[in-house]
Amino acid sequence: MKFRVKLIPVRMDRSSAIMSQEDAEELGVLVGDRVKLVFGKKSVIADVQIATGLIERGEIGICRTITDYLEIEDGGEVELYPVSKPASVEYIRKKMDGHKLTKEEIFAIIKDIVNNALNEIELSAFVLSDYFHGMDFDEIEWTTRAMIDTGETLTFERGIVVDKHSIGGVPGNKISLLIVPIIAASGLLIPKTASRAITSASGTADTMEVLANVSLSVDEIKEITERVGGVIAWGGATNIAPADDKIIRVEYPLSIDPKPQLLASVMAKKGAIGAKHVVIDIPVGAGSKVPTVEKGRELANDFVELGRRLGLNVTCVLTYGGQPVGRTVGPALEAWEALKALENAKPPRSLVEKALGVAGTLLEMAGITVNGIEHARKILESGKALEKFREIVEAQGGDPNIKSDDVPIGDKTYQFTSPIDGAIAHVDNKRIVKVARAAGAPKDKGAGIMLHKKGGQHVKVGDPLFTIYAEKEWKLDRAVELAMREPPVVVSGMVLEKYPSYRYI
Amino acid sequence: MKFRVKLIPVRMDRSSAIMSQEDAEELGVLVGDRVKLVFGKKSVIADVQIATGLIERGEIGICRTITDYLEIEDGGEVELYPVSKPASVEYIRKKMDGHKLTKEEIFAIIKDIVNNALNEIELSAFVLSDYFHGMDFDEIEWTTRAMIDTGETLTFERGIVVDKHSIGGVPGNKISLLIVPIIAASGLLIPKTASRAITSASGTADTMEVLANVSLSVDEIKEITERVGGVIAWGGATNIAPADDKIIRVEYPLSIDPKPQLLASVMAKKGAIGAKHVVIDIPVGAGSKVPTVEKGRELANDFVELGRRLGLNVTCVLTYGGQPVGRTVGPALEAWEALKALENAKPPRSLVEKALGVAGTLLEMAGITVNGIEHARKILESGKALEKFREIVEAQGGDPNIKSDDVPIGDKTYQFTSPIDGAIAHVDNKRIVKVARAAGAPKDKGAGIMLHKKGGQHVKVGDPLFTIYAEKEWKLDRAVELAMREPPVVVSGMVLEKYPSYRYI
Repeated sequence: MKFRVKLIPVRMDRSSAIMSQEDAEELGVLVGDRVKLVFGKKSVIADVQIATGLIERGEIGICRTITDYLEIEDGGEVELYPVSKPASVEYIRKKMDGHKLTKEEIFAIIKDIVNNALNEIELSAFVLSDYFHGMDFDEIEWTTRAMIDTGETLTFERGIVVDKHSIGGVPGNKISLLIVPIIAASGLLIPKTASRAITSASGTADTMEVLANVSLSVDEIKEITERVGGVIAWGGATNIAPADDKIIRVEYPLSIDPKPQLLASVMAKKGAIGAKHVVIDIPVGAGSKVPTVEKGRELANDFVELGRRLGLNVTCVLTYGGQPVGRTVGPALEAWEALKALENAKPPRSLVEKALGVAGTLLEMAGITVNGIEHARKILESGKALEKFREIVEAQGGDPNIKSDDVPIGDKTYQFTSPIDGAIAHVDNKRIVKVARAAGAPKDKGAGIMLHKKGGQHVKVGDPLFTIYAEKEWKLDRAVELAMREPPVVVSGMVLEKYPSYRYI
Repeated sequence: MKFRVKLIPVRMDRSSAIMSQEDAEELGVLVGDRVKLVFGKKSVIADVQIATGLIERGEIGICRTITDYLEIEDGGEVELYPVSKPASVEYIRKKMDGHKLTKEEIFAIIKDIVNNALNEIELSAFVLSDYFHGMDFDEIEWTTRAMIDTGETLTFERGIVVDKHSIGGVPGNKISLLIVPIIAASGLLIPKTASRAITSASGTADTMEVLANVSLSVDEIKEITERVGGVIAWGGATNIAPADDKIIRVEYPLSIDPKPQLLASVMAKKGAIGAKHVVIDIPVGAGSKVPTVEKGRELANDFVELGRRLGLNVTCVLTYGGQPVGRTVGPALEAWEALKALENAKPPRSLVEKALGVAGTLLEMAGITVNGIEHARKILESGKALEKFREIVEAQGGDPNIKSDDVPIGDKTYQFTSPIDGAIAHVDNKRIVKVARAAGAPKDKGAGIMLHKKGGQHVKVGDPLFTIYAEKEWKLDRAVELAMREPPVVVSGMVLEKYPSYRYI
């Protein structure tokens, strides 16, 4: 059937063809069915949507993404006919019923995810099937390979490529800003792609962006890595393993992260950049993604096995994730603290030792040394790591002379003090993140939290517990109010709430 | 934050607020998060969507459904802030993890489904959780009650209300057009709400619409039922158990119908119209929804138990669903055949006996007689059922003098004949439906299939097997071509395909 184009002046990812109820019946299609729009030699597949009232019979509402692609104007005429679902929908049905998928079926699904050929219902069904039924190792391996093959990849002419990944969930985990320069200074290559915060207060990409540009293309990542040994770039600016971002869009609203997807997504990124040795940091503890050591070991085994299948040498380190790493949470505060560590200016041990532990493991795996931690410590304490970090910052378009105290931090602050004598009983990861986000992180780079005391330390009445930083007064107020209602740092014996009316004592 | 309204000139069911990436970051929201739009004293919750290029900073793209509701113009200013997910999303998460829901949690979910407060991902997660984990009887009962309570209900001052429902899947099942007048003629009340075809060639509402208006309000259904004893209306025109339609929108793209949803959806409609006695027709056989007698019995037990909990007297009848009921498939052809049966003009036994079996069961349940089938047969053969049917047609605005031969059938036809001597080995339900839909059914009322032979009957070379009817030549061609490629009626010994090139012999 022929339709007259009615341009809907927005751009959307998923392609919709909006039509009248009558035309949908005439075509024999329902909402969510697919139609093919043909104009000249170009065609595009779109989902049927029904709009009442404003789309007339014979009209098809399509957004600018489609009209631009078809090179058709508002009022132009397209040919339109129903097409069947892609075969991948059948494979998703198969997985829903608990059957094992073949390599070809998994490749078809991942390819259709990347090409936006699946709608949200179908994509949800795929992710939820993995959540409910899991995947065996063959399926996980195929998913990983499919995610690599449907995106860009990196190859280096010379050098040994290594990488690290931290499973999310623990706030303040800015270790990559120490590890990358230590590794690069040792002569290995580390083209680190990092993520931005989704639900956290700062992703490594957000933190690095305080000091340099992180939106680098795959070519730029390659060039800088070959020149200075390392890079800290935002993975989302590249087309590396692009299926991951689309899958996250479904996982996020449901707050799920099925293990097969977690494994595949992490390892696809490592495989795509050609890493030979990889350390996976698995923070374990209340409020992190992995609550117990047993679960941590299980996940570690899975990573090692998947690495073996893909030809990657993987070591997992279980780390303490029960409270933030270091004392700061929020992009600028974390960049400030990482610089302090590189400057050897009394940095917190929880940050430095963790970074050295991971970097040292990589150095040992790559055969640089048999005592990785001490080797890494030397690079850090000699100032070579700071020097290398400044080279990296400069290569990414930042100021190579940056000092920790130059980092601009939010100038609106509020300090919480201890209401009683006692010891810090609990620093709550989730509440820390909630308060930091209320203060404006990660969008407002200067917003966040600095912890003056951490778990187990003794305090007296009036001692500072933590300070909230913000760039805007109203966001500070919002964060302070939240922190009073839901205290992120608890002193043992402290009254938390009073009923009927509650307030922070 | 304040935003300037940019009107997107369509109406959509789900409310979206389309904004720029920058504004989404400023607000700290991601695609799929909720925001509240406030204008004057009115407010509405919408899903965040990001559109690049055409929505500028400070602008919010919303469709006409929202602007009309808020009574705001293009260019007007709304206040907008993030809100958290409804509590029902937490309950869906709980069900995803296999936990039993409480009554209050189920009511909250169903209410949010009816109010369009859940997005497609969340709704998919709910339906898929039911698919994967099932529901226990408490949950099914609460779902049913929630579906009843979130919609309109019917109460009658006098009389005994009965109803029937056929589980879908078997084509040509026009028995309601016989049962409703038989029951109404017996003095019982039967306010039958029926569905339109979703994937079939004709729903009962499509078939009845050939003869009368089926878009009746709840008030009209009540008035006509009280006056003439029965009605055959389209349920979709009412607001009875409206959650069902929304749930079907997710089930349809995945071709699933989880048992808890099936049970709740059928029984909610029966409960909402105040039925006291209900017969559920469960067609069993290859190509129907219930493949084996064992599965049919299981489902029957579930319906009876759910009825007991709701205070409805339920009897299930297992019927043969391995091939079409009667000889016709498609709205007008089915109306024609039902009228033939009411006129006692040599109707097919598979149609009449099935209708009498179901009607007879209802008569016995309501205490009208101890020999239901014979009582029903008398009403049919005496012409009282035809007389009552004409009253119903007239009450629904149709022509009370309608005769079977007046029903307009598609005038483009193509007859398939047997290529060999033999017996009918197989009449394929799914292929029959596919061909009838290709011919234009259910949209083109006159389109469909008439079977000249059914399973087991003997044929000679050249004997007519079936005829395709269509209203449009191109649809007839399409259907004929499909029927040649995928023969819906198979004579034992017949060559079906030839390779490398295939054709119907």
